[in-house]
Amino acid sequence: MKSFDLGLYLVTDRDLSLGRPLEFIVEEAVKGGVTMVQLREKACSSLEFYQLGIRLKKLLKPYAVPLIINDRLDIALAVDADGLHIGQSDLPWEVARRLLGKDKILGLSVETMEQAEESNKLDIDYIGISPVFATPTKTDTFQPFGLEGVKAVSSIARHPNVAIGGINMNNAAQVMAQGANGIAVVSAISSAENPRLAAEALKNEVTG
Amino acid sequence: MKSFDLGLYLVTDRDLSLGRPLEFIVEEAVKGGVTMVQLREKACSSLEFYQLGIRLKKLLKPYAVPLIINDRLDIALAVDADGLHIGQSDLPWEVARRLLGKDKILGLSVETMEQAEESNKLDIDYIGISPVFATPTKTDTFQPFGLEGVKAVSSIARHPNVAIGGINMNNAAQVMAQGANGIAVVSAISSAENPRLAAEALKNEVTG
Repeated sequence: MKSFDLGLYLVTDRDLSLGRPLEFIVEEAVKGGVTMVQLREKACSSLEFYQLGIRLKKLLKPYAVPLIINDRLDIALAVDADGLHIGQSDLPWEVARRLLGKDKILGLSVETMEQAEESNKLDIDYIGISPVFATPTKTDTFQPFGLEGVKAVSSIARHPNVAIGGINMNNAAQVMAQGANGIAVVSAISSAENPRLAAEALKNEVTG
Repeated sequence: MKSFDLGLYLVTDRDLSLGRPLEFIVEEAVKGGVTMVQLREKACSSLEFYQLGIRLKKLLKPYAVPLIINDRLDIALAVDADGLHIGQSDLPWEVARRLLGKDKILGLSVETMEQAEESNKLDIDYIGISPVFATPTKTDTFQPFGLEGVKAVSSIARHPNVAIGGINMNNAAQVMAQGANGIAVVSAISSAENPRLAAEALKNEVTG
């Protein structure tokens, strides 16, 4: 049985980690209360992506925190990750589901209200509402949903949802108040002076 | 049973196709005698890579020319390609073989004599001797093998081999004379004014 908690979802970005190792950020984040970790790499070789995945899987296992791979189904299969997160420019969801199997977590980013409605029909496990606010880490996205958009998607979504994009201590509680099941963050943890404390503080906002 | 002919192996590069569609280059090349096609994409989205793969698979089927995917095991699985070609910075060969299955073609680039020797022990189907000559399309490689290197690798290799890197009409026959089982080309076909005639001429050099 798949069980996961979208509450506080860390999406990694080595470029935003102030030179600190990926494992340090991830372990501190998990100690601070992160409930899911997505390994997102856009520029490295397949070998390096694979090696990072293997290392994070080993690191996360004792914490029972699921490891999700961004975009690359081959890396998810190769490291036997807990799941895959795809966007609208990645492999079609039905291809991903077929190759991933029914026991793995499959997440899909929705970038418009139409895509959110469409996602209700799909055999996926959660949706990412992306982006909530404008953010420098994603430049290829549609208009931000805003708080109103999170509320609208949450009210119609059949799948659990996690909100992503520009979420931090200043707005996390507001985002959750719209009906989101969790928040995904990048720089709010990876660029924090103390990633563990940043995660703890965010977790507090999420759990109220 | 896997059967393939490394004789004249086209590796695609849309940037070197003078603005002509990928399908045009590939179909003309096959009509001119190309025996294998490798879809190589380094910058596009997973969705686009997948869609290109689906189109090439359909195109190549009537010609019974194998479609090999470069690097991306997920794309190879998703489009049910005939095989996967990996380099030294891609997924480890044993991971690729495990996920690809024994019935698919698995090719591996070797960049040094040591790697060529090592490859004899691996459960792969062919090796790429890369690069034979210096080439602007690959910048992350070791010293070119040269004609002597092709001869040395050919003489010790247990797997069939295809030579790649800077091969064209001026040197194809010489490369084959070193013991190569085939030549792989990028610009010699994709950048040719007439890709079909270019393939015919190269095929003539290969088959002597």
